[in-house]
Amino acid sequence: MFRVRLEAAAGAVETHLAAALAGYGDLPVARAMAYAAAGGKRLRGFLALEGARLHRVEEARALWPAAAIEAVHAYSLVHDDLPCMDDDDLRRGQPTVHVKWDEATAVLAGDALQSAAFEMVLREECHPDPAVRAALALTLARAAGAAGMVRGQALDIAAESAERPLGLREIEALQADKTGALFGWAAEAGPRMAGADAAPMAAYARALGLAFQIADDVLDVEGDARKAGKRLQKDAAAGKATFVSLMGLAPAKARAAALAEEACDAVAPYGAEARTLRELARFVISRES
Amino acid sequence: MFRVRLEAAAGAVETHLAAALAGYGDLPVARAMAYAAAGGKRLRGFLALEGARLHRVEEARALWPAAAIEAVHAYSLVHDDLPCMDDDDLRRGQPTVHVKWDEATAVLAGDALQSAAFEMVLREECHPDPAVRAALALTLARAAGAAGMVRGQALDIAAESAERPLGLREIEALQADKTGALFGWAAEAGPRMAGADAAPMAAYARALGLAFQIADDVLDVEGDARKAGKRLQKDAAAGKATFVSLMGLAPAKARAAALAEEACDAVAPYGAEARTLRELARFVISRES
Repeated sequence: MFRVRLEAAAGAVETHLAAALAGYGDLPVARAMAYAAAGGKRLRGFLALEGARLHRVEEARALWPAAAIEAVHAYSLVHDDLPCMDDDDLRRGQPTVHVKWDEATAVLAGDALQSAAFEMVLREECHPDPAVRAALALTLARAAGAAGMVRGQALDIAAESAERPLGLREIEALQADKTGALFGWAAEAGPRMAGADAAPMAAYARALGLAFQIADDVLDVEGDARKAGKRLQKDAAAGKATFVSLMGLAPAKARAAALAEEACDAVAPYGAEARTLRELARFVISRES
Repeated sequence: MFRVRLEAAAGAVETHLAAALAGYGDLPVARAMAYAAAGGKRLRGFLALEGARLHRVEEARALWPAAAIEAVHAYSLVHDDLPCMDDDDLRRGQPTVHVKWDEATAVLAGDALQSAAFEMVLREECHPDPAVRAALALTLARAAGAAGMVRGQALDIAAESAERPLGLREIEALQADKTGALFGWAAEAGPRMAGADAAPMAAYARALGLAFQIADDVLDVEGDARKAGKRLQKDAAAGKATFVSLMGLAPAKARAAALAEEACDAVAPYGAEARTLRELARFVISRES
């Protein structure tokens, strides 16, 4: 039931995002944008849709922030995969953008996906109140930029050449920026569109994002590269500190499980309606890709 | 008198932009953002300030779009200078970001400068009406993205490996995206903030942007690399079609002069108050850097 729902949401986000990007024509950069934005689990988009549903925001509107956050996520992956960053050839089982096209196209496609994300939440179809659209875009800029996701990526790069590996608290702070900021924005989009209190969704996203990242580290050690569709055991090879290297495998899994429960508790105010969010929290720590 | 005014405006934009970026802390990525955003002629920022002044928009507000458009311009230069793009070591007489730091930091600093630009126009200090802030940000996203500046950059890259060089009309279309879109946005910001007709400023910017680009091609052939603070004769070395290669030097200069006059005519409705804009049009075709 939950997986059906997740897949239905992923399909809706996929269609919406592809349609939004189709307007950019068929230059290589536009085709690269569409290619980079296709596929994936759409967890951030799903989070935006669920937060909206809980606050009675129409799905036709909520698909704009859902598509926008997936566009930002896609841009970050395209740039992250570049040779000068993580240097990955494979993403979601397919050649990365700079492999399929070239590095210049990958830089530009990522750049334009970021612009496109802002365009999506600022369109009138997203919300009739310009104050809401402006608030969505302002918080997106903060979540994506140098006080959010980009800071997390920069800390991650700095850690590679640091003299000592990061400690647990430092990794948690890094991940709160790198993954948490976009999760948080997605979760808060629904309440923000409804003019409701975003605190429960924000607390849910904080715990969910960290659980997600710990599960990612577990997956990097235990996972099956074929199922994951990307290269694994990269962190160990790079000698990077991870939740698993710092805590050990079993304690890391236990911490992820505790965080998933914490996420569930955060959405208790929504009662039975938050069942899907509780299932999402459990899904995030048990996924194979 | 005009140069004093241009320098005063550049100084005000410089200070405002530096203050806006200071909030991102002192990680290498934040220092690289500030470094990349420092200096330059600030023509786009000046255009935003002048358009605002003509429409009685307070300078304290207009400095936000002025700083934002310079942040977008700076991000585009940082990414354009990357080895996979134009591969430039020198910019404004200083080492480029990827030379001074590294490529990963240059990618991330550019990315975060783009986010920061949206943040600037979406702050309440920029304009009290959220509809105006949302409109500024939406049009900025369109001007910067895959239907604007990035499309121009992508066309430029595609031209390098094309079988035949571009024709004059194709170069004009390319430049309208690559340079014109940001010039246009800057020029229209003032009328947009005042709720006034943006058509005269838009027409001015179209002619100014093209004159600027033709002058750039002239400078690339005739200029002094020391004064320009960047490598020149790159286009000829790359065998790229330019306004000069297609038209010849004298006709290109004549066309730039005619466009500068066209720009002056476009702002005739503002009467004597548009004197600075007329001087700017003449400055743009006579500059040495």
